[in-house]
Amino acid sequence: MTAAYETIRTRLDGNVLSATFDAPPINLIGPEVVRDLVGLLDELSRPGAARVVVFDSADPDFFLPHVDLTKVAEYTAEAAKGAGPGDASLGMVFRRLSESPAVTVAKLRGRARGAGSEFLLACDMRFAARESAVLGQPEVAIGAPPGAGAIQHLTRLLGRGRALEAVLTSADFDAELAERYGWVNRAVPDAELDGFVAGLAARMGEFPRDALVAAKAAVNAVSLPSSAEVRADAALFQQFVRGEPMRRRTAELFERGLQTRGRTELDLGAVVGRLEAVD
Amino acid sequence: MTAAYETIRTRLDGNVLSATFDAPPINLIGPEVVRDLVGLLDELSRPGAARVVVFDSADPDFFLPHVDLTKVAEYTAEAAKGAGPGDASLGMVFRRLSESPAVTVAKLRGRARGAGSEFLLACDMRFAARESAVLGQPEVAIGAPPGAGAIQHLTRLLGRGRALEAVLTSADFDAELAERYGWVNRAVPDAELDGFVAGLAARMGEFPRDALVAAKAAVNAVSLPSSAEVRADAALFQQFVRGEPMRRRTAELFERGLQTRGRTELDLGAVVGRLEAVD
Amino acid sequence: MTAAYETIRTRLDGNVLSATFDAPPINLIGPEVVRDLVGLLDELSRPGAARVVVFDSADPDFFLPHVDLTKVAEYTAEAAKGAGPGDASLGMVFRRLSESPAVTVAKLRGRARGAGSEFLLACDMRFAARESAVLGQPEVAIGAPPGAGAIQHLTRLLGRGRALEAVLTSADFDAELAERYGWVNRAVPDAELDGFVAGLAARMGEFPRDALVAAKAAVNAVSLPSSAEVRADAALFQQFVRGEPMRRRTAELFERGLQTRGRTELDLGAVVGRLEAVD
Repeated sequence: MTAAYETIRTRLDGNVLSATFDAPPINLIGPEVVRDLVGLLDELSRPGAARVVVFDSADPDFFLPHVDLTKVAEYTAEAAKGAGPGDASLGMVFRRLSESPAVTVAKLRGRARGAGSEFLLACDMRFAARESAVLGQPEVAIGAPPGAGAIQHLTRLLGRGRALEAVLTSADFDAELAERYGWVNRAVPDAELDGFVAGLAARMGEFPRDALVAAKAAVNAVSLPSSAEVRADAALFQQFVRGEPMRRRTAELFERGLQTRGRTELDLGAVVGRLEAVD
Repeated sequence: MTAAYETIRTRLDGNVLSATFDAPPINLIGPEVVRDLVGLLDELSRPGAARVVVFDSADPDFFLPHVDLTKVAEYTAEAAKGAGPGDASLGMVFRRLSESPAVTVAKLRGRARGAGSEFLLACDMRFAARESAVLGQPEVAIGAPPGAGAIQHLTRLLGRGRALEAVLTSADFDAELAERYGWVNRAVPDAELDGFVAGLAARMGEFPRDALVAAKAAVNAVSLPSSAEVRADAALFQQFVRGEPMRRRTAELFERGLQTRGRTELDLGAVVGRLEAVD
Repeated sequence: MTAAYETIRTRLDGNVLSATFDAPPINLIGPEVVRDLVGLLDELSRPGAARVVVFDSADPDFFLPHVDLTKVAEYTAEAAKGAGPGDASLGMVFRRLSESPAVTVAKLRGRARGAGSEFLLACDMRFAARESAVLGQPEVAIGAPPGAGAIQHLTRLLGRGRALEAVLTSADFDAELAERYGWVNRAVPDAELDGFVAGLAARMGEFPRDALVAAKAAVNAVSLPSSAEVRADAALFQQFVRGEPMRRRTAELFERGLQTRGRTELDLGAVVGRLEAVD
């Protein structure tokens, strides 16, 4: 039933599929992860697929830190295969995730920034380890508006004022603040997180599939951004990615160790607030 | 001024009407309660009616536990008399409650699940006893999406992630979590609840009626679901109610004591997570 | 670069402008404040203007207490100069503030009621001193629905139930409750507030201007009320302002010291709950 993926380890238990991101060294969202995620979405849309999927990460420090900025063209090409005809954006792949017939639950330890946070926001529910979870949208600090769903989801979940704070300050949010603002459903002590999420998932796994699917679709009808909104954000991001501020700030971050395991990635929210690039 | 109802005890004090649900043995939403609620809505729409209504329950364990599943046709027939021409659903009666010229305040002690929670969500504000309040939408666990407003209200109040958690897990929420998520305005210690709500109600009762009505209508214009959305949810529920999973799970629950005062009704959120029915 | 205003003291530091309301005796929103605010909006829309503006008050007790009710025609005439062709309302001036290319951060100490709260709601983010901040929409108690944005913003930020509570009870909210409901981004201890906001502002001031502007516009596209909604609220307010209940209640409040520094203005939320006017 469950296909093998290179960067996502899966294990089926009854009606619940565990999907663990495992793309060393730091789980960057590159072409392989996008390809595997598209494969998983295909799998989940088949009859008889798991009713519930629990996503987590094999890396305690990084859930999904952000996209691989050296491979934008490559991961976008993979997204094009999964996002639907004519669409080539991570935002449309994530929108498809939100519309999956499976219930998607994310268990967050470590960092989820940029498109990593946008992946979480596309899931149906998000539970964060109180001690270690970090969420952030560092895009504006680097020179672009977020392009894969954060604008849409954060504004709807947090309201205008807190969404503007999250997006315009590009700051890191810990689990407690993310819970208070509604970025995650709840912050849960690390020691309780696995049991808590497993309990929810097993419970939902025994509920009638058609009722789960219909209820999720009804909530989506009220809350999901339109495809046009998702496409507009993706187009804006693509435009800014090619801009001079983004180019210079990204270059400075790579000099400081971006995309390697180290202080820059661990403390990215702080680091993007101290760049020397001036525009 | 105040008509006599069989299942709702009313008492007028100045501009504030107290309305206490009293439908033994456990305040099920059956044809009598719906009929009386429709009568009360008629009364409240007359000139000179109370400016503020405070709803509570005569039963400390059950506010409104859910609909009477043995009388779906009967209570729907009563709803048809109050929901407006062509409409026969609890959701449309509750929408009319939301549009009432009176300000509606709910004081929650005990359990409000299913349509009981949806009644609360249709009120203008909700205050819950910290020690005893329980809210839940157990419908999905039993085989149907909620059909009388929970999809619309919870998604708008809680945001997509927390609404999906509430609806898809079918779990019980205590007052503290319900407050944190926005399901109720506030959780208030039981000993302070009566005084707190009475104070708010008396205060609003002295405000100019036209300003109350206009301000409420303006907030409704931003926040109420459309009639089309309410009707779609009702139609979906009616369809699932006749389905095989719902029939089998409901039968199992009745065997365990559903609709009687006892463990099953008291702990329904837990019980629906342990059903033996398999689909 | 920075013009001189009579009622707003400004100071430019790098890309961050500090703007301090200073309109003795109590910072009422009268024609001078509206004129200066319109001037500041013009300034902020010029190329090379500050990227970030931090608003605060020179008066520790009053941020902006409410409009000057003796000068409705006068401040509306000033609003007409800044709100765009054909529009003469504070609500449309505040909407223009929300659309400013500058990031607007409000630092709240003391009271912000009525249009003072609506000014805050139009800003991009709001941080409140835990010890002293008070927010309220006393309009309904006095005889009118709020007319300059509160209906739209509070409903979107707080959800229907809590927005109805805030608007219909006309009660004062302290910083802690305002944070819990989402009226402000965060309540911050007074001793930390200046440093916290200065840090955020300086940080955003170094981010690429085009990215800030584009991200804010994208969030606005999801969350700002339409001009038609803002105009409808303004028209409703203008209609109620001329009504008999509003006239009588305002007269009683002036007898009790409205618009002077004293108990009535300090405790307006309580005072409007004890008026003797009856309708």
